[in-house]
Amino acid sequence: MKTIRNPRPSTWSALSQRPVKDATSLNEQVAGVYSAIASDGDDALRRFIASFEGRLADRLLLPKKALDSGAVNATAKEKAAVDMAYEAIYAAQVSQVLPEPASVFTQPGVEVWAERRPIEKVGLYIPGGTAPLVSTVLMLGIPARIAGVRQVIIATPPLSDGTLSPILCYALQKVGAETVLLAGGMQAIAAMAIGTTSVPKVDKICGPGNQYVVAAKQYAQTIGVAIDMPAGPSEVMVIADETAEPSFVAADLLSQAEHGTDSQVVLATTSVDILRRTKQEIVRQLKVLPRADVANQALKNSLFVLFDDIDPAIEFANEYAPEHLILSVKQARDVSRRVVNAGSVFLGNYSPESAGDYASGTNHTLPTNGWSRTYSGLSVDSFSKWVYFQELSKDGLRSISGTIDVLATSEGLEAHNQAVKVRFAGDKRNV
Amino acid sequence: MKTIRNPRPSTWSALSQRPVKDATSLNEQVAGVYSAIASDGDDALRRFIASFEGRLADRLLLPKKALDSGAVNATAKEKAAVDMAYEAIYAAQVSQVLPEPASVFTQPGVEVWAERRPIEKVGLYIPGGTAPLVSTVLMLGIPARIAGVRQVIIATPPLSDGTLSPILCYALQKVGAETVLLAGGMQAIAAMAIGTTSVPKVDKICGPGNQYVVAAKQYAQTIGVAIDMPAGPSEVMVIADETAEPSFVAADLLSQAEHGTDSQVVLATTSVDILRRTKQEIVRQLKVLPRADVANQALKNSLFVLFDDIDPAIEFANEYAPEHLILSVKQARDVSRRVVNAGSVFLGNYSPESAGDYASGTNHTLPTNGWSRTYSGLSVDSFSKWVYFQELSKDGLRSISGTIDVLATSEGLEAHNQAVKVRFAGDKRNV
Repeated sequence: MKTIRNPRPSTWSALSQRPVKDATSLNEQVAGVYSAIASDGDDALRRFIASFEGRLADRLLLPKKALDSGAVNATAKEKAAVDMAYEAIYAAQVSQVLPEPASVFTQPGVEVWAERRPIEKVGLYIPGGTAPLVSTVLMLGIPARIAGVRQVIIATPPLSDGTLSPILCYALQKVGAETVLLAGGMQAIAAMAIGTTSVPKVDKICGPGNQYVVAAKQYAQTIGVAIDMPAGPSEVMVIADETAEPSFVAADLLSQAEHGTDSQVVLATTSVDILRRTKQEIVRQLKVLPRADVANQALKNSLFVLFDDIDPAIEFANEYAPEHLILSVKQARDVSRRVVNAGSVFLGNYSPESAGDYASGTNHTLPTNGWSRTYSGLSVDSFSKWVYFQELSKDGLRSISGTIDVLATSEGLEAHNQAVKVRFAGDKRNV
Repeated sequence: MKTIRNPRPSTWSALSQRPVKDATSLNEQVAGVYSAIASDGDDALRRFIASFEGRLADRLLLPKKALDSGAVNATAKEKAAVDMAYEAIYAAQVSQVLPEPASVFTQPGVEVWAERRPIEKVGLYIPGGTAPLVSTVLMLGIPARIAGVRQVIIATPPLSDGTLSPILCYALQKVGAETVLLAGGMQAIAAMAIGTTSVPKVDKICGPGNQYVVAAKQYAQTIGVAIDMPAGPSEVMVIADETAEPSFVAADLLSQAEHGTDSQVVLATTSVDILRRTKQEIVRQLKVLPRADVANQALKNSLFVLFDDIDPAIEFANEYAPEHLILSVKQARDVSRRVVNAGSVFLGNYSPESAGDYASGTNHTLPTNGWSRTYSGLSVDSFSKWVYFQELSKDGLRSISGTIDVLATSEGLEAHNQAVKVRFAGDKRNV
């Protein structure tokens, strides 16, 4: 738990560096998996499942019947929780779908407009194994459905007996899952990126995963398959003033730290007292946590920064560009307007990151590793793109033909000019 | 000019393959440039300008005075053309900026909303040399300005004497250029991605370029700098029925073919007569083109496909996912609604690609190489991102705490649960 007092802005960039991992050997492994699946398809996929997941993959896709019978076994409590989270996420995600803009005439006879189109085929990756991420099924499946994606493949590694937990089946049913690939890791990503006899090839792959999954997604880009965003370990920054409650702040930091030993945890505070008491609370709360070992490891890389004033704390957050930013400060709404770089922001003392992870409705698939400077969190936009259109009348084209002539000439592209001139070649009045 | 009649859908994917280039040796060269600029900054940049651009870079940035005095020398005709293109592009780009959505309460006391933020620092690349792309200055600079980007660096290789053409200076002035880096190629991209004493480091790099620029942009991503989109050679597909005019179609195909020897040109038509006459027109028009050699080379990779009906032609276009799609067909508006995968679409006989390249108002920075399946063309969105917010009251958090409990438990993340429970620990009524 490194503590720094009023670091100068010139040091912020260095303080914001996340640990760098060398992925060279990983990339060679990934290339091998892709090449094998490209030549041997399902057979190669089965071999990798056997060696990496330690299972005999008698079936690659989950039959509809197995999904339905699995879902039936979810408890009433589990179903109610999934239902409530589904409603919240659906309401929030659909509210952020903006209407298509009206067309404009940039000149009389020159009409220009944009239309949104769903991406046709997407693959969603749900990390799994012993603790499958039920919430991620909702976070990915709901916006894909709202966008109107025609074909959704959901890949997740099953339990050792090849089944999925009842609550996971129920969540998959909720998002209307039709094709569920029972595989994880590099092999699942490669199968969706390339396509096999059993697994449809997709246009884009979304979802979180470990370093193997991340490397396999990056590789997918090199063969023309898009991905949602670059990824790194999860992270939270808390900005706390004297109105914060140390036990809450400590719990928020720990909920991030338990994700993995490489999780990033940062506290920026204006109060010496809050800093001291939060550290005490961390020690106290750690004792009862089942994943205390993981959290302890993550806390070794944590950063505690004391600022004299709230302003540099906000500026520091914008430099760090955290995935999650909790504003445990007075007038959090005002402060939030000055946040430029963050994935998801939590205002006040009763908005823990856990709320956004599961049930407030915001998406939990967010840019890490400083990418919130340029990327948005996952949304319906991630499953759509815009197509731009224009329709010109003959007079409309004539009205901009002089402009095209000058610009095409300046760029030495005469055929661009001719494509306009040929359309007026037979006219008495040439352009 | 390969001609195919009614290809079966099973062959479309293969027909849609673009030529693949091996970039391995390029990538090593790029890595070398990055490493040198990372250690030697401006000195390395100057060395690369000397060796790659063959100039002595006495100045790296264009002084404001030089920009102003250059712009003064633009002719009245040039200024009028830039002004008109500016107005059209501005009007179209700003019309596509959608208002921020209203916040929603996903439960009483659980408020969720999204706010748009400009990306803070961007680098725009303008290919140049003998024929600088004046239009690209507008296509990149205008949306960056509308988005509210705080710092825009525009990089372009100058003429051999280190100056920029008057029309280019005028266009730069129009978009409010403040920092103009007089360099091109890998060295310009690397300098903006890393930052040097003279060149500010940027968060994102946008703009077209040759294979060196593309490789350098891809490398930028590996060090945390975003790019607008993957890139490949430019391409056009024309869908023509019997109402098309062969001389127009030929001119449109040639205007794409003159871009570069690797340009992709595809005609899908339902009319044998149009096909035959278009080929004749291509031969005729080629004779008078200054860049006939380039166009001729590009035409060798072109594809002419004859379909019995318009429906498979549209489906084929969606499989091919062209950068530019011209619909020279009757009822083009109806047909356009069935286009799913294309960057920019041109309707009817008087909407040549040249219109969109310069002055209709749509952006000409578009996804190539099949990426229109998943990417949109450049827009104000390319210079912005969304930040997501939530604010919960204590009762709001209480209302979703049961859901968080069940889901966090199912995922084995107890600290996530504790971050909620601690907030009600002192209450008589626990959650």
